Amino acid sequence: MIRRIDRIAIEMPPPSDPDPEGAAAVQELLGGRFGEMSTFLNYTFQSFNFRNKQGARPFYDLVANIAAEEFGHVELVAVAINTMLTGASPIDGGQAPKASLAPLKGVGNPHHFLVGGQGALPQNSLGQPWSGDYVFSSGDIVEDLTHNFFLETGARNGKLKVYEMVEHPAARALTGYLLVRGGVHQVAYARALERLTGADLMKLFPSPRIPTEKIPECKPYIERGEHLRLYRFSPSDYLELGAVFTGPHPETGEELVVEDEAPEGAPAFDLPSQPAVFAPDYAPEEIAKIAEKLRTDAGLSKAPTGVVAKQPSRRASGSGSGRKRMAAGTK
Amino acid sequence: MIRRIDRIAIEMPPPSDPDPEGAAAVQELLGGRFGEMSTFLNYTFQSFNFRNKQGARPFYDLVANIAAEEFGHVELVAVAINTMLTGASPIDGGQAPKASLAPLKGVGNPHHFLVGGQGALPQNSLGQPWSGDYVFSSGDIVEDLTHNFFLETGARNGKLKVYEMVEHPAARALTGYLLVRGGVHQVAYARALERLTGADLMKLFPSPRIPTEKIPECKPYIERGEHLRLYRFSPSDYLELGAVFTGPHPETGEELVVEDEAPEGAPAFDLPSQPAVFAPDYAPEEIAKIAEKLRTDAGLSKAPTGVVAKQPSRRASGSGSGRKRMAAGTK
Amino acid sequence: MIRRIDRIAIEMPPPSDPDPEGAAAVQELLGGRFGEMSTFLNYTFQSFNFRNKQGARPFYDLVANIAAEEFGHVELVAVAINTMLTGASPIDGGQAPKASLAPLKGVGNPHHFLVGGQGALPQNSLGQPWSGDYVFSSGDIVEDLTHNFFLETGARNGKLKVYEMVEHPAARALTGYLLVRGGVHQVAYARALERLTGADLMKLFPSPRIPTEKIPECKPYIERGEHLRLYRFSPSDYLELGAVFTGPHPETGEELVVEDEAPEGAPAFDLPSQPAVFAPDYAPEEIAKIAEKLRTDAGLSKAPTGVVAKQPSRRASGSGSGRKRMAAGTK
Amino acid sequence: MIRRIDRIAIEMPPPSDPDPEGAAAVQELLGGRFGEMSTFLNYTFQSFNFRNKQGARPFYDLVANIAAEEFGHVELVAVAINTMLTGASPIDGGQAPKASLAPLKGVGNPHHFLVGGQGALPQNSLGQPWSGDYVFSSGDIVEDLTHNFFLETGARNGKLKVYEMVEHPAARALTGYLLVRGGVHQVAYARALERLTGADLMKLFPSPRIPTEKIPECKPYIERGEHLRLYRFSPSDYLELGAVFTGPHPETGEELVVEDEAPEGAPAFDLPSQPAVFAPDYAPEEIAKIAEKLRTDAGLSKAPTGVVAKQPSRRASGSGSGRKRMAAGTK
Amino acid sequence: MIRRIDRIAIEMPPPSDPDPEGAAAVQELLGGRFGEMSTFLNYTFQSFNFRNKQGARPFYDLVANIAAEEFGHVELVAVAINTMLTGASPIDGGQAPKASLAPLKGVGNPHHFLVGGQGALPQNSLGQPWSGDYVFSSGDIVEDLTHNFFLETGARNGKLKVYEMVEHPAARALTGYLLVRGGVHQVAYARALERLTGADLMKLFPSPRIPTEKIPECKPYIERGEHLRLYRFSPSDYLELGAVFTGPHPETGEELVVEDEAPEGAPAFDLPSQPAVFAPDYAPEEIAKIAEKLRTDAGLSKAPTGVVAKQPSRRASGSGSGRKRMAAGTK
Amino acid sequence: MIRRIDRIAIEMPPPSDPDPEGAAAVQELLGGRFGEMSTFLNYTFQSFNFRNKQGARPFYDLVANIAAEEFGHVELVAVAINTMLTGASPIDGGQAPKASLAPLKGVGNPHHFLVGGQGALPQNSLGQPWSGDYVFSSGDIVEDLTHNFFLETGARNGKLKVYEMVEHPAARALTGYLLVRGGVHQVAYARALERLTGADLMKLFPSPRIPTEKIPECKPYIERGEHLRLYRFSPSDYLELGAVFTGPHPETGEELVVEDEAPEGAPAFDLPSQPAVFAPDYAPEEIAKIAEKLRTDAGLSKAPTGVVAKQPSRRASGSGSGRKRMAAGTK
Repeated sequence: MIRRIDRIAIEMPPPSDPDPEGAAAVQELLGGRFGEMSTFLNYTFQSFNFRNKQGARPFYDLVANIAAEEFGHVELVAVAINTMLTGASPIDGGQAPKASLAPLKGVGNPHHFLVGGQGALPQNSLGQPWSGDYVFSSGDIVEDLTHNFFLETGARNGKLKVYEMVEHPAARALTGYLLVRGGVHQVAYARALERLTGADLMKLFPSPRIPTEKIPECKPYIERGEHLRLYRFSPSDYLELGAVFTGPHPETGEELVVEDEAPEGAPAFDLPSQPAVFAPDYAPEEIAKIAEKLRTDAGLSKAPTGVVAKQPSRRASGSGSGRKRMAAGTK
Repeated sequence: MIRRIDRIAIEMPPPSDPDPEGAAAVQELLGGRFGEMSTFLNYTFQSFNFRNKQGARPFYDLVANIAAEEFGHVELVAVAINTMLTGASPIDGGQAPKASLAPLKGVGNPHHFLVGGQGALPQNSLGQPWSGDYVFSSGDIVEDLTHNFFLETGARNGKLKVYEMVEHPAARALTGYLLVRGGVHQVAYARALERLTGADLMKLFPSPRIPTEKIPECKPYIERGEHLRLYRFSPSDYLELGAVFTGPHPETGEELVVEDEAPEGAPAFDLPSQPAVFAPDYAPEEIAKIAEKLRTDAGLSKAPTGVVAKQPSRRASGSGSGRKRMAAGTK
Repeated sequence: MIRRIDRIAIEMPPPSDPDPEGAAAVQELLGGRFGEMSTFLNYTFQSFNFRNKQGARPFYDLVANIAAEEFGHVELVAVAINTMLTGASPIDGGQAPKASLAPLKGVGNPHHFLVGGQGALPQNSLGQPWSGDYVFSSGDIVEDLTHNFFLETGARNGKLKVYEMVEHPAARALTGYLLVRGGVHQVAYARALERLTGADLMKLFPSPRIPTEKIPECKPYIERGEHLRLYRFSPSDYLELGAVFTGPHPETGEELVVEDEAPEGAPAFDLPSQPAVFAPDYAPEEIAKIAEKLRTDAGLSKAPTGVVAKQPSRRASGSGSGRKRMAAGTK
Repeated sequence: MIRRIDRIAIEMPPPSDPDPEGAAAVQELLGGRFGEMSTFLNYTFQSFNFRNKQGARPFYDLVANIAAEEFGHVELVAVAINTMLTGASPIDGGQAPKASLAPLKGVGNPHHFLVGGQGALPQNSLGQPWSGDYVFSSGDIVEDLTHNFFLETGARNGKLKVYEMVEHPAARALTGYLLVRGGVHQVAYARALERLTGADLMKLFPSPRIPTEKIPECKPYIERGEHLRLYRFSPSDYLELGAVFTGPHPETGEELVVEDEAPEGAPAFDLPSQPAVFAPDYAPEEIAKIAEKLRTDAGLSKAPTGVVAKQPSRRASGSGSGRKRMAAGTK
Repeated sequence: MIRRIDRIAIEMPPPSDPDPEGAAAVQELLGGRFGEMSTFLNYTFQSFNFRNKQGARPFYDLVANIAAEEFGHVELVAVAINTMLTGASPIDGGQAPKASLAPLKGVGNPHHFLVGGQGALPQNSLGQPWSGDYVFSSGDIVEDLTHNFFLETGARNGKLKVYEMVEHPAARALTGYLLVRGGVHQVAYARALERLTGADLMKLFPSPRIPTEKIPECKPYIERGEHLRLYRFSPSDYLELGAVFTGPHPETGEELVVEDEAPEGAPAFDLPSQPAVFAPDYAPEEIAKIAEKLRTDAGLSKAPTGVVAKQPSRRASGSGSGRKRMAAGTK
Repeated sequence: MIRRIDRIAIEMPPPSDPDPEGAAAVQELLGGRFGEMSTFLNYTFQSFNFRNKQGARPFYDLVANIAAEEFGHVELVAVAINTMLTGASPIDGGQAPKASLAPLKGVGNPHHFLVGGQGALPQNSLGQPWSGDYVFSSGDIVEDLTHNFFLETGARNGKLKVYEMVEHPAARALTGYLLVRGGVHQVAYARALERLTGADLMKLFPSPRIPTEKIPECKPYIERGEHLRLYRFSPSDYLELGAVFTGPHPETGEELVVEDEAPEGAPAFDLPSQPAVFAPDYAPEEIAKIAEKLRTDAGLSKAPTGVVAKQPSRRASGSGSGRKRMAAGTK
């Protein structure tokens, strides 16, 4: 079972200029074969299917626990995509039956606008759905770990390339963080293989062969030691992580660390309505009134209880001007 | 983000006679269009993509929180399938290069044996992979809720039919529980639609038109009031659930209840190794020795720290006799 | 546009012993690459996309008109499958929560029972969905006709093989008829190609090389001349068929004929409820009462107005005994 | 069975400036999950699979009859796409081996040019094929109707968004009409559910929450009362529609009406040849000569017998200038 | 470019008792994610896409050359499947319109009989088509080799499990050989990774952890040293293999060897006609007469020139008795 | 089995201006339904599955041999795509973590950059994977040949359209050659059908109806007689080709010819590294040093042994300027 926390892994930038083509590319990190749905669901299924857990407990704990972190990565990619799509249709006065989506014809992933509500989809950069075929769960622990090491390698490749292609601040914040955390998981699986077989895999790092410290958006995380830490994403379980995740980091030589608490994270921005795509409605203010009444009837506070990131003072995203930026920016 | 707890939603029966054909059928509840991966990932994506959360907070909280419970349902279906596959290949002395899988030729889902390690797969009852196409996230709150109500209806249909087809104790324990909990979610989404539009949907219940109290395996849960309760699956968030999930239950007239804590759940059985399919290895005892040494080196206890369900005194599933049961039982 | 007639192409036998494995095989003729959905939708899309219709009118008329007949073939395959599935779960007293579907575990296409209501699905014999990829519509008239000739050839192969594999009376009635009508379409497309290019294709018949008159179930149709006739499936249009469909039949030498009216067809049997799969409901008699009241309220007759085939005096398929037959017959 | 009429549901505009990117977007309404192939084939399969038709006749008649109208909607989307693609490659002098398709590199759906003949394809806006997976036919009448209501809701969303994105006259004529007719079907399925269960669903309208009267292209149809009428698409059958489709319209309060005859429709334009993609041929005039001779030989009139829309006096789409418009218009 | 030799990699057994369920399982080794089409086409695409070949020549030569051997493995799996399907329908007197395929209803992969001619298909053990998605070609040499090592590991797992499940002599001959040759490729890719990075991967062997010498059907190949040899599958190229494939074998310590010539192989059996599925025809003797005449007309020998394996003296496969064995053997 | 030769079918032009949108279109000829993977694998599987080869030897030899030529066509399309993608990211100084791929956002097939290393993929022009569903292998020789004739017709259509859309020199060199060679195969299959049935198919040529001599890039091949020759792609086998491939060419009347040796082909260019996508590495010069050392250690020459096409004197592709051309050329 899980418990859910309404916070995201890191502070993400607020919406700024929309970037629908960038958002279409970032989908590769969500629903692509090497995207975060794949890492999340591979490790999740492997943990479900683990036999003789007690006999192989440190390895089970490692896989089951990394799975939990990956959920937060899926979430973070979704946040980036939603942020990049905000303002792609006009935020004010952009409702149907106007031609509010006309500047988006032929731009980016059409399902972002025609099917979804300018939101993230379980698709890759070609708009193809994530598939259960992407899950590898052979039950053979050495084989599953070999796969996981390969998967993290492919994932790192994808993150580097999205980094190079998409300069939007949300995409850069995302890839900077994921490259560092993905690197930790790559090391973790290599270490696990080493523990089981005696092979020495540390010289395979980094793969692809560019160290994360060359990447400006990775630096703050490296300075905080995020490249060395495996967090325990459970209040009670997966205590044997530390039996596997030990020794020096293959690139820096610093000692690997297990953190007993999951990172605190940060609240996400409350992304504004996009009435042109009916998200969350054609007239969101009516929903707000209903919500307020429901809260009052239920004896809750009149104001919403949820915590969201504080909006920067100037209105950075969208409104009518968002559309103009689109017209200029993408065509 | 999530935190993961190494417990499952309910106590499940230990492995008994293997039922590979039943396990193939139960896959529909895991990777089918109306299976638990679909409920989990639909609500998860809808919560990721929610715009103007503060304005529509009670609805956001409802969807985001039910998503968290659904993870536990995915897990539970996987437990059932793994339990049913235990012993399908001989547990002792059934290692390659013997013809240990010969009795399984043409039986059930071949990927359970040829690709996986007698474990659950993200596939439906035809062996087709779960697809991101199954996720509906339009961003329009009324439309998403309409979808969710329909999805739970289809899911209930699937559970009823699997109940009728598969008599294995694990399948019955699973469907008994899921029918009750799915019913709660069906009500929750109908209530949310009512709150937003004023329509009266309660007369659509039950759909399909068979009340759960007719089903023996549902009874214990109904007696405990599980058909009335929506749990909050977060230590800190989703406080506004209760503004939506109120009023009488459409079938019994009892008052709906919001529980502030998630259910405690239970430990799962540690399913035995299946060396014929190398799960977790050809010689699992070697893994166990490595694990013990790693624990000791790391200053942890010599014995594994994880908590698993206590094995019933005898009839521990499978071994050589498991195979005989197969031969007799499925062909 | 179309008009729909509530009759099927030929008289079909009433339900008898259920044959779920046969029904799974017959799906190939419905949703397979060479099944009737493919012939129907290929010709339909080609007719939609036809350019310069006036210039090429006889060819347009031919394709558009055969499309209309193919709809009736899709319907007929569905009737056969539904007939063969009737009684596979017990018709009386077989409602949930009994294990009414237990004898069907591992038998036939599981979606017939777990997802559908013992009804036809747009799938092939492997349970794979029909795909828009099966439609070929290049716009090039010679190429489209070449494709159509090939498609009918592949379809004939499939029908012959289903004939050989499935002996259920509904399957035999179906394939006997479709082999004859498919042969007419194969000739029609070959003739069209001949008219356009001057090539002589008649020596390609029959392909596969077994004449339909060898097949007992084809005989009645050949005796009635159905192998020679192209019907006009429109009260007003497609008058230029006859400019293409002329000359001798390649196998018998008899003259081809255009019929100005579509065949009269026959009413279908009203297949009985299957309450174990909730089709059309758990308690169908309640639906019937509602329907009667609605009719009366609307000033219609108290009895239903639709025409269905007259049930044979006894042996109305299924009931409790249907299940016994299953148990004996398929396992 | 069906009869086919060589007319389309409404008068559509003649080809004007080509809009290949718009055509790619409109494909969502053809082959998307919520497109017209889905409505057509869902209701068609549900009608094929209906059990106990006599007992539930009004509901069977409703579903079977709406299926027939949907065929005409599929056709209409195809007409729109074909119209929008006309002239995208030069109509005169644009034959291979020139680089006639060079301006279309990277524009719209490449299969419109490389695989098809500038015609409609059974694909969505991402170029993904329509799939049999989109058909839901559970056999349970309440569940199927719940699905159908949801499907029409999703379809309405898609139509609104395509309306906003694509301003081409053919796309606007299409979506204006389909929004009105889709609305009728949405009401019909809600009414059917109400009749069966007693639930009150009328307050769910409109969903998405924008009334069609706000949309200029819907107005003429609303003025003609098309939002209130359910047509009987059969010369002989489906007489019990009227027992379900009664009462006030949920948005306007006007009384719903059953029309005993299908709409007359209108002839389609005969779209000109596109020799650059060999549609219908590299040298269509040769085909025309063959056709004329075949007609004469068959004793038919020398001129084609089919009825097509009268071409407007000038500006008949395309020719060389079509290409220039492309170059200017899409890149 | 390639040259093709009409010989197969090893002598395979002649047809004996048909095993359609076994053949369905063996398909996993042909069209599964880890089957031979995957190894063949992965290495082939990687060799096509190799950049800076001259700079990385030993690695290019290795990948390009192994690709060539894999073609022969695809072929060999096909031979095994065809052999196992021979006689599944009666060889004499089993032509349509008899019910020759009736005993095969519900047995094995229905496409073997309904779509194909009792031949191999590019599908896996679930009947799902091989997909281009299975090809990984990142262009990054370390990453591609990491993938290839993982792919061979997964392939070895699949071969072991098919070995355990299918006892038919053709399946055993196949898997015995492929396990040995796959092991060589697994070593080759590990060595290549070691050369490029300095990591030590030899301790990962064997994976899965069962040495091939435990498998009787592998023994003859190990005795001949096939587990040590990499053949050069080119008369002229790929000379730099030997710069990578050196050092001791990880399991036996024997020295690895590069052979300058490809193995000689053996002729395949000429599998008999299966007239019930029209393979190669309903009346194959007519084809033979035509062939003879064509040869004579072309000045070739009257007898066929091809070399096939000598049939064992007694007719081991099929005829009428094949069918009886089916009935007894698989149901 | 095959032998592989490190040469390609014809001399191809060196990289020049990159054309990522053109490369995305050319993918249709690689992984599309009518692309070269389809021709290659259709004929390959048909040859694997051929029954009674000795009886039908001339036909088996024809199919098996053409399969071998098709491998070289797959390779040639890959060369064209790789050539067109060279320089799309900057060749010098374009490494991560720069935004080297930013000009490619929204351009062409994103998988060329985000997943692959600017290399060919087994995908079509929509980025959809090649599928085993594209293989038709019924075992019925007449039917398979009918299919093959149709397949070559569709393939010719695709080549003509790619020719019209993509003017890049590599695409034109490719399509010019493939149109001629595909024409030979189209004739070969038609002739085979004629030999078996007596039908006269020559009047179906050319289809689509544009003779290759109208296409400038085809001319050199026609002048060399390539449209008349079927090469034997085996040093030892497939001797009976000539019994089928005889008579006059349907378009020119010249006599068809069987060549006893395969064409010599030409070396390919060694395409330069693309470090922005890590192909073959971030720092390819390090790989080169390792390779040199490995060669020396193995007693091979210090310089690479492979033969590649001689680079034209001026550096035609890429470097920094490649990027500028991109920016100017595609957006």
